[in-house]
Amino acid sequence: MTPVTPDTPPAGAPFTGAVFIGTSLDGSIARPDGDIDWLTSRGERAGDTGYEEFAASVDHLVVGRATYEKVLTFGEWPFGDRPVLVLSATLAEDADPRVRVVRDVDALVAALTASGARRVHVDGGRTVSSMLAAGLVHELTITTAPVLLAEGLPLFAHLGRDVALEHRSTRVLGAGFVQSTYAVVP
Amino acid sequence: MTPVTPDTPPAGAPFTGAVFIGTSLDGSIARPDGDIDWLTSRGERAGDTGYEEFAASVDHLVVGRATYEKVLTFGEWPFGDRPVLVLSATLAEDADPRVRVVRDVDALVAALTASGARRVHVDGGRTVSSMLAAGLVHELTITTAPVLLAEGLPLFAHLGRDVALEHRSTRVLGAGFVQSTYAVVP
Repeated sequence: MTPVTPDTPPAGAPFTGAVFIGTSLDGSIARPDGDIDWLTSRGERAGDTGYEEFAASVDHLVVGRATYEKVLTFGEWPFGDRPVLVLSATLAEDADPRVRVVRDVDALVAALTASGARRVHVDGGRTVSSMLAAGLVHELTITTAPVLLAEGLPLFAHLGRDVALEHRSTRVLGAGFVQSTYAVVP
Repeated sequence: MTPVTPDTPPAGAPFTGAVFIGTSLDGSIARPDGDIDWLTSRGERAGDTGYEEFAASVDHLVVGRATYEKVLTFGEWPFGDRPVLVLSATLAEDADPRVRVVRDVDALVAALTASGARRVHVDGGRTVSSMLAAGLVHELTITTAPVLLAEGLPLFAHLGRDVALEHRSTRVLGAGFVQSTYAVVP
């Protein structure tokens, strides 16, 4: 993979927002109950997805409450010492010492800026769309699993405006996954 | 492109159903009013999409009423002498001598079988999903435009069951289009 890793955030942005996420061909990131068996069962045969390289390139993670609660079910905290911010209107601020809860995008940007964020991993469906709508996502790597789901939670909500993208690279992984990286056209 | 053109329909199927369609990265085939400017404006720079080769490989076309009515706005009938069936519960049966109106999927299959269909182009969002749900789509070629739409009509409706796919090929076209072909796993 050709990594899309600018050395500096885009002009005017305090940091680069980067998405690295798997979807079904019909654009879902999970079943309605959050289940991602259709992804993980195929993912074992995908080979190197580039996730480790991506994870090493980011210094902060932003997720929504749904993704945060999904991660809690994994048992092990997968994010090491990397600062994790949870964008949630409802999660208690002292819910978890491993995360910082922020109430809205403005508070998120302030927290990331104060924390010296340079390259932020943006994860989870509603959070990705909120950050896209706010102009805070600059790169998207979408890894598409070869399946249509009976029902699913969409990655992209309608954004209220078109977002033009520049295609950077596409490669075929194992098990029929297709991974494409796009830059958001400012 | 490696064409996915089986010589004979799949075992048990009277014909092969094949989809060849463009979508936005967020999976829409049109804006809510049917507008596809975001596709056609970029499509001019896509180069050879393989559509002509695909069109030459099919002997019948099935569309829904919405796609049929969109095609009428083009002025010119783009399908030549190829038999066109419109799957619609409401369109008058004698609406257009160039098409045959069928009321449901059973009637469609009967009409295609009687007409000697071997390889059928299935087009339009609701029709693709109806035919997928009925097990009558065997191949999908999706050409993804590098854009997220403010609002759109989805290609895939939720199907009520998972549909496993086998990835056949992926290529990058001009203007950042990515084209992938899948076979439906029976």
